[in-house]
Amino acid sequence: MRPSGRQPDQMRAVTLERNVAPKAEGSCLVSFGSTKVFVTASVETTLPSWRRSSGMGWVTAEYGMLPRATGSRTKREAAQGKQSGRTQEIQRLIGRSLRAVVDMQALGENQITLDCDVLEADGGTRTASITGAYVALADAIKWLEARGLTKGPVLRDSVAAISCGIYRGTPVLDLDYLEDVEAHTDANFVMTGTGKFVEIQGTAEQVPFSRDELASLMQLAEQGIGELTTMQQAALS
Amino acid sequence: MRPSGRQPDQMRAVTLERNVAPKAEGSCLVSFGSTKVFVTASVETTLPSWRRSSGMGWVTAEYGMLPRATGSRTKREAAQGKQSGRTQEIQRLIGRSLRAVVDMQALGENQITLDCDVLEADGGTRTASITGAYVALADAIKWLEARGLTKGPVLRDSVAAISCGIYRGTPVLDLDYLEDVEAHTDANFVMTGTGKFVEIQGTAEQVPFSRDELASLMQLAEQGIGELTTMQQAALS
Amino acid sequence: MRPSGRQPDQMRAVTLERNVAPKAEGSCLVSFGSTKVFVTASVETTLPSWRRSSGMGWVTAEYGMLPRATGSRTKREAAQGKQSGRTQEIQRLIGRSLRAVVDMQALGENQITLDCDVLEADGGTRTASITGAYVALADAIKWLEARGLTKGPVLRDSVAAISCGIYRGTPVLDLDYLEDVEAHTDANFVMTGTGKFVEIQGTAEQVPFSRDELASLMQLAEQGIGELTTMQQAALS
Amino acid sequence: MRPSGRQPDQMRAVTLERNVAPKAEGSCLVSFGSTKVFVTASVETTLPSWRRSSGMGWVTAEYGMLPRATGSRTKREAAQGKQSGRTQEIQRLIGRSLRAVVDMQALGENQITLDCDVLEADGGTRTASITGAYVALADAIKWLEARGLTKGPVLRDSVAAISCGIYRGTPVLDLDYLEDVEAHTDANFVMTGTGKFVEIQGTAEQVPFSRDELASLMQLAEQGIGELTTMQQAALS
Amino acid sequence: MRPSGRQPDQMRAVTLERNVAPKAEGSCLVSFGSTKVFVTASVETTLPSWRRSSGMGWVTAEYGMLPRATGSRTKREAAQGKQSGRTQEIQRLIGRSLRAVVDMQALGENQITLDCDVLEADGGTRTASITGAYVALADAIKWLEARGLTKGPVLRDSVAAISCGIYRGTPVLDLDYLEDVEAHTDANFVMTGTGKFVEIQGTAEQVPFSRDELASLMQLAEQGIGELTTMQQAALS
Amino acid sequence: MRPSGRQPDQMRAVTLERNVAPKAEGSCLVSFGSTKVFVTASVETTLPSWRRSSGMGWVTAEYGMLPRATGSRTKREAAQGKQSGRTQEIQRLIGRSLRAVVDMQALGENQITLDCDVLEADGGTRTASITGAYVALADAIKWLEARGLTKGPVLRDSVAAISCGIYRGTPVLDLDYLEDVEAHTDANFVMTGTGKFVEIQGTAEQVPFSRDELASLMQLAEQGIGELTTMQQAALS
Repeated sequence: MRPSGRQPDQMRAVTLERNVAPKAEGSCLVSFGSTKVFVTASVETTLPSWRRSSGMGWVTAEYGMLPRATGSRTKREAAQGKQSGRTQEIQRLIGRSLRAVVDMQALGENQITLDCDVLEADGGTRTASITGAYVALADAIKWLEARGLTKGPVLRDSVAAISCGIYRGTPVLDLDYLEDVEAHTDANFVMTGTGKFVEIQGTAEQVPFSRDELASLMQLAEQGIGELTTMQQAALS
Repeated sequence: MRPSGRQPDQMRAVTLERNVAPKAEGSCLVSFGSTKVFVTASVETTLPSWRRSSGMGWVTAEYGMLPRATGSRTKREAAQGKQSGRTQEIQRLIGRSLRAVVDMQALGENQITLDCDVLEADGGTRTASITGAYVALADAIKWLEARGLTKGPVLRDSVAAISCGIYRGTPVLDLDYLEDVEAHTDANFVMTGTGKFVEIQGTAEQVPFSRDELASLMQLAEQGIGELTTMQQAALS
Repeated sequence: MRPSGRQPDQMRAVTLERNVAPKAEGSCLVSFGSTKVFVTASVETTLPSWRRSSGMGWVTAEYGMLPRATGSRTKREAAQGKQSGRTQEIQRLIGRSLRAVVDMQALGENQITLDCDVLEADGGTRTASITGAYVALADAIKWLEARGLTKGPVLRDSVAAISCGIYRGTPVLDLDYLEDVEAHTDANFVMTGTGKFVEIQGTAEQVPFSRDELASLMQLAEQGIGELTTMQQAALS
Repeated sequence: MRPSGRQPDQMRAVTLERNVAPKAEGSCLVSFGSTKVFVTASVETTLPSWRRSSGMGWVTAEYGMLPRATGSRTKREAAQGKQSGRTQEIQRLIGRSLRAVVDMQALGENQITLDCDVLEADGGTRTASITGAYVALADAIKWLEARGLTKGPVLRDSVAAISCGIYRGTPVLDLDYLEDVEAHTDANFVMTGTGKFVEIQGTAEQVPFSRDELASLMQLAEQGIGELTTMQQAALS
Repeated sequence: MRPSGRQPDQMRAVTLERNVAPKAEGSCLVSFGSTKVFVTASVETTLPSWRRSSGMGWVTAEYGMLPRATGSRTKREAAQGKQSGRTQEIQRLIGRSLRAVVDMQALGENQITLDCDVLEADGGTRTASITGAYVALADAIKWLEARGLTKGPVLRDSVAAISCGIYRGTPVLDLDYLEDVEAHTDANFVMTGTGKFVEIQGTAEQVPFSRDELASLMQLAEQGIGELTTMQQAALS
Repeated sequence: MRPSGRQPDQMRAVTLERNVAPKAEGSCLVSFGSTKVFVTASVETTLPSWRRSSGMGWVTAEYGMLPRATGSRTKREAAQGKQSGRTQEIQRLIGRSLRAVVDMQALGENQITLDCDVLEADGGTRTASITGAYVALADAIKWLEARGLTKGPVLRDSVAAISCGIYRGTPVLDLDYLEDVEAHTDANFVMTGTGKFVEIQGTAEQVPFSRDELASLMQLAEQGIGELTTMQQAALS
């Protein structure tokens, strides 16, 4: 039933390739099927002004798409002179999601910026970004730890994200672009490795959804996050 | 236990005052306690270029805060030269929420823009905006209908929104600013008058939340939306 | 003869409602007929960089219009990414007018920002803004005085503003929108409570004006400012 | 008494040099003492969109200062990414002043843009700009007339501008920079060759002014405009 | 003598990997040592307005660097709100270089945009971009030819680019970052496959160069371009 | 053969008029035929942040064109809200060219900004700017020296620039606008008074050029720079 022939609860092939950017303190090329995001983690000692001299660090994210990540060329945001509302919404989500598992006191006065640049977009770029950014973040934290620049264990948990939706009446896991365009409901779940929720964003496209439908999506998400967590652990070990 | 002395499931006093902007086709001054949003609905016959000649209309929203809506003065976005990421995120949410109950074919080639300007901010400005914008939208649609400019019933349902959160361990309805700052989890629910979900945005601040906690928040939201729906009907009748 | 039926020297009904923004140190909802401006005065201890360590304070103003203050929707300046020339001209005028009655030494190193946001526009928004901003400013100065943060009497006089114009050959006081569009000459007068001039801006639309015509407008303005000064005193007592 | 040794009613040496920009349809290098403005008039057949197909033309102005027109270098507006409020205010004034003497029907569907670029600034740049721009405009109109592109006499009158102020208690004509900085009142007058007012802008710096003081300034201005009108006629003949 | 141990006339390892962006009409991942640029060629039927209805096409380029392509993080241009002067200079160079070998009549009314995004920067990003962009461009033209959308042979020649410089007194080919920082002269050569020059940019850093030094650099460049041309032919066959 | 009737190796009449901006520390009105550039040199004690406390100075340049420097009016960059890529490319070139002859240690912690504003453009504005900017720079350095603000001889050499091109098959010196539009190759040479190269930028328009053609252009340039150097010396003595 799905355009890709997948089962409703079947994710696309996911890969997490570390150390793709030798200059960065952490990096990961993450792919969910043909969605590919190039993530780097950069450690800096300059913090936002409101955070300085607090003894605490900060984790933030920026998101971008290469112009031809999409089926037809999208205008380059740098040439347009501003980031779209969609871009800002996504990069705020990525930053919030990662901060939920970071102990800012333990991080000390360091800032880690996760840059998520989409090389190819086939649905689910924000969830792929979060999932890959966690891996890059973990490597950047190891880099800091190896230099004695942290004050205790920085990561309290792992974090991953997946989308679900109701496609032609059936709840399905990990929407690709063709499904996303047509799905009546689209929900993104960000969860920790220990199974708690960090963020839920469910949106009805045209047809509102019921409490039961949301419950089905949540169940699919929990399964998917479980699989992603295992892959993150494997990648990082 | 709540700073305001409210019960966990008790909303703030809500008012919906219509026709506050005599020049607009619809308008509503909505207050949730001391949060006050001035909403206008403007009918225009120019559509976004990608929508033209489709036979369908469009509903969109813009959001702003007067500089001194907040406890200390916030810089004016027009003077800064751009809308913040938070502003764009909120106005996209308002627009999506309203579109979920509009039949675009029936609306015909008209655009309705909802301007939500916060006069005073005490938490919940986005949910108050949605709730008030529905009232202004309904009036603007009546204005179109009275002139024979629609092609059938435009509104398929009503829509309202409320926030919930976990404050000092207890799920509470309709967070005010003091609660919002401290709450461990903050969730916004947009629902229709018939009890379906249009949008859910749940965010863990620092401490991830469980499936059960989300369920409690959802239950509070359903109650709150029920009350808001009744108030919207009263205001519009 | 006037569209509103007013006498040539008759102002619209003016109201000055204080304390409309509980969070601000001063505020005033001013209306001249159906022109309505929401003014807040915000006290801050940060001064513009060129003013720091001078022992003197600063008073400045910003102006905006809600998109649907006008008969058809005006684009939101924050979304456009800049303030129009008209907006900048008006906010510079408001700031200059207020500074003319403030003793900056007595104010001490405090900045007061007057935000004038037009809820409804029916001509005369700049003069209404100045008239209302004086009331909000006076309250903010009382707030500072009550905390012992000033160095002597800050206000040297009061200030108010009114427009006049030549409408169908007759000099008239307090132009509304219908008159403004058609008037051959439009002049704004900013005067102190003791009857001196702070600012005069007279503009010929199409037909230049004579010295005598200007004298007639000036006389009307002096009368109008007298009435406004009395209303400001009443509002503040 | 004046820093320059001038009499109170004595203008600086004024020169109006035509045809300084051979590519432009009209041009004038105007100097008031060491204030020098390079003005060009450009004829275009594209009108602003709101003016098209009206049978009428349009006259507009832009203003700029070379960075080192001033005693210390001013930042370049093009590099700053925007025109200041002062620049916008001035260019709006120049445009309005010129339009007051133009018959837009007779101009036909042509646009004339006056670019006023200050090479050296020593007070009075806006009044010098208006005075010189009239000369450039007159030449551009001759250019159009010579090609049969107008529909009757375009200029209804001439226009010139001068500043006056109260310097150390005495009303003086044509303020230079040293006087401008210190003057208690500063007024700009735009008048036609036949002695009518197009624009008056009087501003109190620190000390409000009286009706009598304004009358003295107006008298000085009338004299000054008379002299400027004679010089414009001489330049154009 | 060179930090990398290379001979003066030895280029870094160059790879040209085609079809790295399946959605694009042409693409190439080009690497010069650890400098890596991801290039896509996008075919569009919309031309710049000044080019429309001319029967001719257009080729243009945009350039960007991922924030962590560099040793320390560079700010994202989209977040900064503008492209730097360096970025604009480079993308103009890439566009001009490619247009030099394209027959715009034969291309017909199609636009091809080359997006060159630097994944890793180690000197020579502009020359790598041009060399890889030619490959992507050639594939995009094949795509057009396969659909019968061209009007004759579009490519008149191939084009490639290389940098040379004087490093510690010796002319060397293909500067890497360490050499670039220190080199006294830095020159970029863009040449066709048939050995003609399209663009030369030679810049003295601190010490001006002589005619003989330029001649030595030119000779190195000719050799390097020869090698690159062979690699381009191999990649495309 | 040339539109102007000049010999292939004949430059236009060049003039270098000093002290055209009395307020600036150095200035020069440079003309190459009807190309006219107004250059000022401004000394400031504030350096870019990355240069502070280094004991060294900085020289930078900004470039602009008055809107009607060109045959038809060009939009004002300040009104457009940004500098074009071309403008940025040119001002970077001017700054680099001048820095090549300045001893930054000897300059001390001073910044000199060269503003090059084109009053009339007839080809070669960038080379005229460099040639004239050297004269203004030399005067600004004399100004510093006269006040004992330098630490030894600042200028190591003089610098000038000229364009050459291949026009209808013949290499010619100092292209004017008519030649520039049609020339198949256009090259700008920046050279020192002692005959060394600071910058070479050669660009093929449509037809790539050979090594021999470049050599001819270089020879013309050397001759032209020799003449310009003599004129600079004369102007400065």
